[in-house]
Amino acid sequence: MTDANLHPLDAMLALAPRAPGMYDGHTHASYWNMVGPYGGATAALLLHSILQHPKCLGEPVALTVNFAGPVAAGPYRIEATPVRTNRSTQHWTVTLLQEDEQGETQVTTTATAVTAVRRETFSIDDVPLPHMPTPESCERFDTTGAMEWLQRYDMRVVTGAIPQAWDDSAHEPVSQLWVRDNPPRALDFPALAALCDVFFPRVWLRRARRVPAGTVSLTIYFHADSAQLAAQGEKHLLGQADAQAFRNGFFDQSAQIWDSAGQLLATSHQTVYYKE
Amino acid sequence: MTDANLHPLDAMLALAPRAPGMYDGHTHASYWNMVGPYGGATAALLLHSILQHPKCLGEPVALTVNFAGPVAAGPYRIEATPVRTNRSTQHWTVTLLQEDEQGETQVTTTATAVTAVRRETFSIDDVPLPHMPTPESCERFDTTGAMEWLQRYDMRVVTGAIPQAWDDSAHEPVSQLWVRDNPPRALDFPALAALCDVFFPRVWLRRARRVPAGTVSLTIYFHADSAQLAAQGEKHLLGQADAQAFRNGFFDQSAQIWDSAGQLLATSHQTVYYKE
Repeated sequence: MTDANLHPLDAMLALAPRAPGMYDGHTHASYWNMVGPYGGATAALLLHSILQHPKCLGEPVALTVNFAGPVAAGPYRIEATPVRTNRSTQHWTVTLLQEDEQGETQVTTTATAVTAVRRETFSIDDVPLPHMPTPESCERFDTTGAMEWLQRYDMRVVTGAIPQAWDDSAHEPVSQLWVRDNPPRALDFPALAALCDVFFPRVWLRRARRVPAGTVSLTIYFHADSAQLAAQGEKHLLGQADAQAFRNGFFDQSAQIWDSAGQLLATSHQTVYYKE
Repeated sequence: MTDANLHPLDAMLALAPRAPGMYDGHTHASYWNMVGPYGGATAALLLHSILQHPKCLGEPVALTVNFAGPVAAGPYRIEATPVRTNRSTQHWTVTLLQEDEQGETQVTTTATAVTAVRRETFSIDDVPLPHMPTPESCERFDTTGAMEWLQRYDMRVVTGAIPQAWDDSAHEPVSQLWVRDNPPRALDFPALAALCDVFFPRVWLRRARRVPAGTVSLTIYFHADSAQLAAQGEKHLLGQADAQAFRNGFFDQSAQIWDSAGQLLATSHQTVYYKE
């Protein structure tokens, strides 16, 4: 199969193993953001590097990605290491490395993750599911002329759309939307990780002012197992994002992703740098 | 000053630098939990190792601690590395290492962190402050006979106390309480990190069943700067904890910590393993 036949997410995730946990890869234009890859794509990539490791135990439970420096268009290297393996859990560190213009190796991104073999237990969702109209009845967000990564998502915003006027008016920082990959693609863990980061910076909504902003650290807790993801297939997911505190250059943003049947797939948190 | 004159938190945090970012330390009985140190104490320790580094830039913004394996009573080594330093932000990886009974070095804990030089910007708290009676009017939680680390906190629970009867009844997983170090101690970043983990596992409250449970990964976003912490001094902090999803062996727990004047100091999230 050539690159052209792959879903853009799979083309972006392509890694050439050099040794167990050591991979060569290359940035992909399909998920380009303003000055580097879409952060959700990088999160997906680092998670994928773990799941490809021959020693990987179980499925993802937690992932934290730290955006240490810009990822330049070009080749990169990923090192994914299982630093501790217990009976049913495994702890990972991951590093994304690039050579800078002087030929020096730079850490652009770090991550830690926990994978685990789950056992069936008492289970319940304790966060209220938003009441949402069907995805078919919601207008699709027009991404004409928008950055490349936004073309990779079919988003149908119900509340908390990106402000129409940048007029410094105050808004509740909550958004609710339907979202899925574009073109549609069966849901898996890397795709879910990428989807956790689709929400635009809450500071833009809160202030109706488009200040420079970028994710510094992103944490995802996976509640779904692969069976729940497989059952979801290509259907729209329900997403919600909010914020708790904006303070002197950083705010926290939280998100929930439910499957189309209303069961939580993941909850996510990030701290985001902003200017002004 | 001898160990006996130090506050127990400072005694626990004591590290002997071996080289920049390399420290020798030893577990401390004052923060002992059932089978190892209190997780909040370990989070404080790893943050402290960063703040002691001669190259540390600014103040903490984000910290993620992964509890990879048990920390045994005895000596340990900490390695804190600034993997990337930008103009105003710095990214860290930290590892806590112990020798096992076979003399093999084991990773017991990993962490990543972001420190930053903050600049004054638009700032606002967007999470509702709980209405709470004064700490003086609330009954202090009786820790007689409880684990050692619980003796290190003065907790005054307003709602969501630990169940009186383990009768499998269903409860809202929310707790609200006043808390400070015991004996009182001026607030700083390590103390705040430790305080983010004082809430007992939400699964105990949710189910009124005391199942085995332990934090696997903990993330803290710091909103306060050192001036706000200094202004707080030894006063009681307001804490709130909740949960979003319990699923097949893991649940997520979130927390907010406000200062006595009602301004957010930190928001925190963790994924917690549970059995049954």
